[in-house]
Amino acid sequence: MKITIVGTGNMGTAFGKRLTASGHDVTLTGRNLEAARKLASSLGPKAKAAPPDQAASGAEIVIAATPYSEQANALRSLGALNGQVIVEISNPLTPDFSGLAIGHSTSAAEEVAKAVRGVRVVKAFNTILAQVLAEGAELGRAQRTQVFYAGDDATAKRAVRSLIESVGFEPMDAGPLANARYLEPMGMLNIYFAYSAKIGGRIAPVWLRG
Amino acid sequence: MKITIVGTGNMGTAFGKRLTASGHDVTLTGRNLEAARKLASSLGPKAKAAPPDQAASGAEIVIAATPYSEQANALRSLGALNGQVIVEISNPLTPDFSGLAIGHSTSAAEEVAKAVRGVRVVKAFNTILAQVLAEGAELGRAQRTQVFYAGDDATAKRAVRSLIESVGFEPMDAGPLANARYLEPMGMLNIYFAYSAKIGGRIAPVWLRG
Repeated sequence: MKITIVGTGNMGTAFGKRLTASGHDVTLTGRNLEAARKLASSLGPKAKAAPPDQAASGAEIVIAATPYSEQANALRSLGALNGQVIVEISNPLTPDFSGLAIGHSTSAAEEVAKAVRGVRVVKAFNTILAQVLAEGAELGRAQRTQVFYAGDDATAKRAVRSLIESVGFEPMDAGPLANARYLEPMGMLNIYFAYSAKIGGRIAPVWLRG
Repeated sequence: MKITIVGTGNMGTAFGKRLTASGHDVTLTGRNLEAARKLASSLGPKAKAAPPDQAASGAEIVIAATPYSEQANALRSLGALNGQVIVEISNPLTPDFSGLAIGHSTSAAEEVAKAVRGVRVVKAFNTILAQVLAEGAELGRAQRTQVFYAGDDATAKRAVRSLIESVGFEPMDAGPLANARYLEPMGMLNIYFAYSAKIGGRIAPVWLRG
């Protein structure tokens, strides 16, 4: 697939590695175009960088990999978006990282969907830490790591499901976009376990089935 | 351990089975004393029923197994509670079961802790469906089902940890009681997967570690 990544932080970088390793064509962009260029050249021939207003043209999927507070502006900087599929991966942390800034009555994913015209937002990857994304879906002996995805547009969800499978994770349909209200707190608990409880970055939640 | 279960619904019944099968002494109580008596006699010699105001005396742990809307009244009906350890297992669903009624700025567990004097509340078991609790912790090939527990009192948390281990589940320390704000949405997503997405009742979330 042709995939655009907005943002060159930990998650943008991990997506760059994982997607190019899985054979996808990746375009990197962000406020800092120099960082996008550097990352692209480190990723080899499957990656390139482009200014925001040229980065999404032709992309089958756009991964919004900025902090939540920058998502709407970052997506708007891409120019006209005609039904573009957006994968929204953020956990809307408070500035001191102690909790979630919004939720239950809404979610980061729903707010982004409201704030940006012309996109079909799918919440996904917010329970996958950058290290897990970069290193792969095998954690422990038994079960592939799941990526939960939630959205209101069936076609967009199918595209994201394919994306998840293509990078080796197990897709888990988490229902409508409003269920991001449950996924985001789970992402927060994942961050709690990794860093506050000091279990480390090679963890992820999955659903066992008996 | 001597354990009191308040409530004789699906979860109260599953706790009754699992705890007596694990060798605990169980006292059952609830608004409907007749239901508690019936359940006790079906569980055999390790179980008995008692009226609410006599049910918690001598209990090492009280499991609050009523709907969230009844928790405070149910616990108050137990009479004086001098530092009693309470395991709070509810997901605070809206009346139409479509979502969580409270959260992010608070949680069912915190509200119960505020509403009832003389107790030490530990959130736990809210991601365990009654069927999983009754049938045991083995789901899938690889990993024991985890029970997440969150609380502010170290002694109370140790007691609940022992309880979780004694019934065959893996305890997972989820931090302070305020983290019930993350556990309760995860419980809601578990309910979504089981019933709305129709995966069925033999599922549970766990954290993989790599």
